[in-house]
Amino acid sequence: MPQDEVIWVDGERSASLPLPDRGLSFGDGLFETLLIVNGRSPWLDYHRQRLEAGLAALHFPALGSTFDEAVALALSSLAPQAVAALRITVTRGSGPRGYQAPSPTVPRLVAQLSSLSLDPFTCPAPAKLAVSSLRLASQPLLAGIKHLNRLEQVLATREFRAQNVDEAVMCNQQGQVVSVVAGNLFAVVKGELYTPSLQDCGVSGTRRRALIERWAPRLGLTVHQQALSLEQCLDADELLFCNSLQGLRAVAQLGAKCWGEHPLSQALQQQYLADLQQSVGL
Amino acid sequence: MPQDEVIWVDGERSASLPLPDRGLSFGDGLFETLLIVNGRSPWLDYHRQRLEAGLAALHFPALGSTFDEAVALALSSLAPQAVAALRITVTRGSGPRGYQAPSPTVPRLVAQLSSLSLDPFTCPAPAKLAVSSLRLASQPLLAGIKHLNRLEQVLATREFRAQNVDEAVMCNQQGQVVSVVAGNLFAVVKGELYTPSLQDCGVSGTRRRALIERWAPRLGLTVHQQALSLEQCLDADELLFCNSLQGLRAVAQLGAKCWGEHPLSQALQQQYLADLQQSVGL
Repeated sequence: MPQDEVIWVDGERSASLPLPDRGLSFGDGLFETLLIVNGRSPWLDYHRQRLEAGLAALHFPALGSTFDEAVALALSSLAPQAVAALRITVTRGSGPRGYQAPSPTVPRLVAQLSSLSLDPFTCPAPAKLAVSSLRLASQPLLAGIKHLNRLEQVLATREFRAQNVDEAVMCNQQGQVVSVVAGNLFAVVKGELYTPSLQDCGVSGTRRRALIERWAPRLGLTVHQQALSLEQCLDADELLFCNSLQGLRAVAQLGAKCWGEHPLSQALQQQYLADLQQSVGL
Repeated sequence: MPQDEVIWVDGERSASLPLPDRGLSFGDGLFETLLIVNGRSPWLDYHRQRLEAGLAALHFPALGSTFDEAVALALSSLAPQAVAALRITVTRGSGPRGYQAPSPTVPRLVAQLSSLSLDPFTCPAPAKLAVSSLRLASQPLLAGIKHLNRLEQVLATREFRAQNVDEAVMCNQQGQVVSVVAGNLFAVVKGELYTPSLQDCGVSGTRRRALIERWAPRLGLTVHQQALSLEQCLDADELLFCNSLQGLRAVAQLGAKCWGEHPLSQALQQQYLADLQQSVGL
């Protein structure tokens, strides 16, 4: 385990997972990646609510206060000024051999705290994107939730890293745009925002939700959640993506297409940063 | 851990997995489920070759002798007459936060031995099947290999257990038949065998391979690997499925359709049993 990481399993400091565990066996579980700034985790409600939606979709019992206790435990271990990522993984725990879930299920919670070397109040430089050759599979029953079956993202990340870019646009099997590998994508067209609707695949991001519900409305921007083609993205006035650790990031390049100006992305970033400061008490 | 289970991690007896592990984090790994009879594991070559195909598809380094050593270690711990299941799980091991795979990758191997209370030389009674409401996602890059992303199978198993049947037929998003939840499906039509081609989803089973390459040819039966509709299955003269622990199992019922006779399934079962006896030295 790297020295800048601390792990808890069910509330106890531990560097090991009891076996068998259905999270390992089948990816039978969910996770959240929280940004920690100034001893607080912004948009924690959105994370908790997405996790709860995932638990319901996978027929897990509700967690009660376990999630909040795990976050509080991690926060209490940190120096106040630290910037960190906290990954909360919830698995269906142990069970007998085979796919059938144990009854009752006793979920297991793994919290992994990693220090980050980024300034959360400085927006990252506009990103270079590729188009992933891997097309996401359509599975409406698992769309939106942040489950542990992430081989597509692992393979797509390997591909775009080899192309020396920062991220990649992922399409579904029909060729419609879904997201980037680790974040949600928005296109700006004639002063309005467009983002894929995520009914068949993709993760419903917490920053995507905040952008739709908070930051875009404050700027008077309409957000359309609908099918989005690669051509529409290439023809857009601006592209931006978001995730919990990078916040909002403008896109400078997608394949051969370049964007030099990002006025609406920057206006949204200002909303993001103002909200971030407020939610971490700065 | 149940008393009839023994687990090794990288060759050491252990009931815990070092964290972080990418098998837990992303389902970044593969597994094999071996039947153990009379101190031997039948069709071990097929299991090893499928695992190697999976390692290549996920860009893992080759395992060398690790797989065979893990199997030998588990076999040496068993009473000679024991019947058991040995699950071998290979993960991409530890790595830093995020989807990017570590370089170099040091895979981790977990071997889990569970006693079985079945007689491997008695064919299970013909099975009752439902049709799963869950349709498998199409992902050609992951089709055929036995990777750790198995939430679809977990959800489908929950559904058919609630329906009080033994298994369920799974279709793809286009409504074509793929397999059962934990096994491969064959239809007998006018003395020939038909099985889905698994280019877009499903697992390329070891017993499926043996049926195609060994047992059907010995009986002079042609096997067609092609698209198969649910209607073709319902109209078939016989249905059967196979997996490593149950061997070959005839289908007595699929939804409202019943089959009372299974002559070709039984002839194939005899080939299976003869091969099983020989390969475990009985």
